[in-house]
Amino acid sequence: MTPPARIGDPIAQVDTPALLLDLDAFEANLQAVHGAVAGAGLALRAHGKAHKCVEIARRQVAAGAIGVCCQKVGEAEIFVDGGIRDVLVSNQVIGATKLARLARLSQRATVGVCVDHPAQIEALAKALREEGGRIEVLIEVDVGSARCGVVTPAEVVDLARAIQAHAPMMTLRGLQAYQGSAQHKRTPQARREAIAQACEKAAAARDALQAAGFACPVITGGGTGTYGHEAASGLYTEVQPGSYVLMDADYFANEPDPQAPVLRPVLEVLCQVISVRPGQVVLDGGLKAFAVDSGLPVPLADGWRSASISDEHLVLRTKPEATPRAIGIGDHVRLLTGHCDPTVNLHDWLVVHRGGRVVDVWRVDARGALF
Amino acid sequence: MTPPARIGDPIAQVDTPALLLDLDAFEANLQAVHGAVAGAGLALRAHGKAHKCVEIARRQVAAGAIGVCCQKVGEAEIFVDGGIRDVLVSNQVIGATKLARLARLSQRATVGVCVDHPAQIEALAKALREEGGRIEVLIEVDVGSARCGVVTPAEVVDLARAIQAHAPMMTLRGLQAYQGSAQHKRTPQARREAIAQACEKAAAARDALQAAGFACPVITGGGTGTYGHEAASGLYTEVQPGSYVLMDADYFANEPDPQAPVLRPVLEVLCQVISVRPGQVVLDGGLKAFAVDSGLPVPLADGWRSASISDEHLVLRTKPEATPRAIGIGDHVRLLTGHCDPTVNLHDWLVVHRGGRVVDVWRVDARGALF
Repeated sequence: MTPPARIGDPIAQVDTPALLLDLDAFEANLQAVHGAVAGAGLALRAHGKAHKCVEIARRQVAAGAIGVCCQKVGEAEIFVDGGIRDVLVSNQVIGATKLARLARLSQRATVGVCVDHPAQIEALAKALREEGGRIEVLIEVDVGSARCGVVTPAEVVDLARAIQAHAPMMTLRGLQAYQGSAQHKRTPQARREAIAQACEKAAAARDALQAAGFACPVITGGGTGTYGHEAASGLYTEVQPGSYVLMDADYFANEPDPQAPVLRPVLEVLCQVISVRPGQVVLDGGLKAFAVDSGLPVPLADGWRSASISDEHLVLRTKPEATPRAIGIGDHVRLLTGHCDPTVNLHDWLVVHRGGRVVDVWRVDARGALF
Repeated sequence: MTPPARIGDPIAQVDTPALLLDLDAFEANLQAVHGAVAGAGLALRAHGKAHKCVEIARRQVAAGAIGVCCQKVGEAEIFVDGGIRDVLVSNQVIGATKLARLARLSQRATVGVCVDHPAQIEALAKALREEGGRIEVLIEVDVGSARCGVVTPAEVVDLARAIQAHAPMMTLRGLQAYQGSAQHKRTPQARREAIAQACEKAAAARDALQAAGFACPVITGGGTGTYGHEAASGLYTEVQPGSYVLMDADYFANEPDPQAPVLRPVLEVLCQVISVRPGQVVLDGGLKAFAVDSGLPVPLADGWRSASISDEHLVLRTKPEATPRAIGIGDHVRLLTGHCDPTVNLHDWLVVHRGGRVVDVWRVDARGALF
C-alpha cells in the first residue's frame, strides 16, 4: 500500500483518512513520562500494543525504556525483527503454533510471557522442549480488573512451583499486576485508591512467593492513567505505560494528578469533507478509520460535533448554540479519537508532522498482528 | 503475514483469532439471492465493501453479478487488478490524488462514481482532462438516510447539466438511491414502507431528469435487508446487496420477508480460551478482532454470553438461568459478529471451511484500503 503522504508535503496534501502524529507533542510526552519514571527509580517497559510501530519502540528504548511489552506473539516477532532486545508478551499465550514461535523468538532476544493457569505452563514447556529457547515467566495477578490473573496467593505459589519444575528453560521473573480498569477513573483519588488496592493484592502475592522460598525480582504494571501511583508505591519495580505517546481523547477527561507531568494530545485522524448540506458535513472516514468503543471522534472544528458514524462516513452536525466554522467540500477536518489502540490498528501508516509539514511516515508494522 | 490455517487442517487447528467462512452457507446464499434478483429481471451489482476479497467478487460475477461496487478508490483498484471489469465506487470521491487514480483506473475497466455536488464534478473533470479516461457518473439521491445525496429534483437536474458539460469523458448513468437506514428495520412492513418512500424520491428525481431531456438508464440501490423491495418496485434497474455472502448477526434480528429466500449465517470468528475462572472464560480476540458498533459478539456456546470486551480480550460469563457448556483453557469458541464489514476489515484472511476442514484460505485483499 502506498503511504498517504510524502516527506515535505504540507498537511493539507495528505491523503485521507490518515493518522497524524504531532512530533513535538510526541517528544514532549516521551521526555515527560520517561523523566518522571526514571526520577522515581523504576524501570519503564513501554507498551507497544497501542502504537504497533517499530520506529516508536526504538525511540522509547533510546529514551531509556528497558524494552517493550505487547499482547501478541506476532507483535513480539515484529519488535524483535526491528531490533528491540527485550520483549514481554503481557498476556496469556495459547496454541501450539504460537508457543513454538515464542520459543524460537526467545533464541533471538529476551522474551517474557504471562501465565495464570498450570495448563499454560505445561504447553509452554512442551514448546520449549521441542523448539529450544528460554523464557521469562511472570505470574499474572488479578489486581482489580476481574479479567485474567490469579486471585489467591496460594495459586501464585502453585504456579511458581510449576514454573520452577521446568528450570532452566523457564525462569520465574515475578508478577504482572496491571490494573486496567483504573486507567480511566476520573479523579486522582479514585485512581490512587484503585492502585492502593492493587498494591495490596500484588504485595500479598509477593509475600506468599517469598515465604515459599521464591525470589520475586519484578513487579510490573501501570498504564498512562496511573503509572505515577505505581511508581510511588515502593512495591512495583517496573511500569508499562503505552498510550502516553499517542493519547486517547478519553484520557483528557481524567482530572489530572497534581504531581504528574501534563501530557499533550499527539494522535489525530485527518479526514476530508465529501458531502455537505445546511448544518451537516460528511467526512471520508467511518468505522474502518475510527474505533468507536470509547465514543465518537471529537472534531477539532469550532461549532461542530460528531452526529453519527457508518462504515465509511462520519456525519458532523453543527452545535445548536455555536457559530460554526464554515466547512466546504474538500476541506480537511482533524479529529481526536476516543481510543487510540484499536484506531491505530485500522491504519497502515502514521504521518508524522511538525510545523505544518510532513517530516516522516512511519509504518504501523504490527497492524493486524492478531495471533 | 502468514495465514492462520492450511488447506486440509481441521478447524480445531486454525490459529486464533480468525475469520471462518462456511462455504456451504456462502454458496447457498449466493444462489438464493442471485436467483431471486435474476427472477425479478434486475441486474445485481454485488457490494464488495463488506468482504474486500477478490475471490468472493469473482464468484459473485461468475454467479451472474454484472460487476461490483465498493466505497474507496483503493478497493476499486484491487478489484480491477483481480479481474473485475465493472466497478462502481458508490460514494463521493474527493481529493486530487484519488481522482487521478480513478481516472487512470477507468482506462482499464468500466468505472463509475457517485456525485451530489457540482464541486465533485469539476474536480473529476480536471482529473479526467489531466489523466485521460472516461467515467460513468451516478447522481446520488438522498432517499431517506440523511447522509450523502441531493434532496431536491432541481439539484439533480443541475448536476446532470454539469455532467453533460463534460461529455464524453463523463457519462450520466442514472441515480444512486440506496436507503441504508432501512436495512436493519425489524419488520417487513417497516422496510417496505421505507423503500416505498425511497422509490417516491428516486422516481421524482428520474422524472425531473427525463423532463429536462436526460436519459436515466440506471437506478441502483438496495442492500441485503431490502433488495426484494427494490426488485419488486418496477423502478430500480439494479440492486447492490453485499452482506448476503457473510451475514451480520444483526440481520437475523430482522423479522424475515415472507417472499425472500432464507439466508444462512456464513461468517464466524474463531477464538480460543486463554484464561478461566468459575463462571468466566477470557477469549483471545478483542476490539482488534471484532467491530462492536452493532453490539458484542454472540458466542455459539450454550449457556455463555459476552460480558465485556477490551483491546485483546473478550470476557464470556455464564448465563444465570442456563447449564453452561464446559469450556477450558485452549478450547475453541465460535462467535457471530454483529457487523461483518468493519470486522472483516480487521483481518487479513478468510479461512474457508466445509465438513469441518479448511478447504481454502482467501485473502482480504482490500483490508485497510482507506483512500
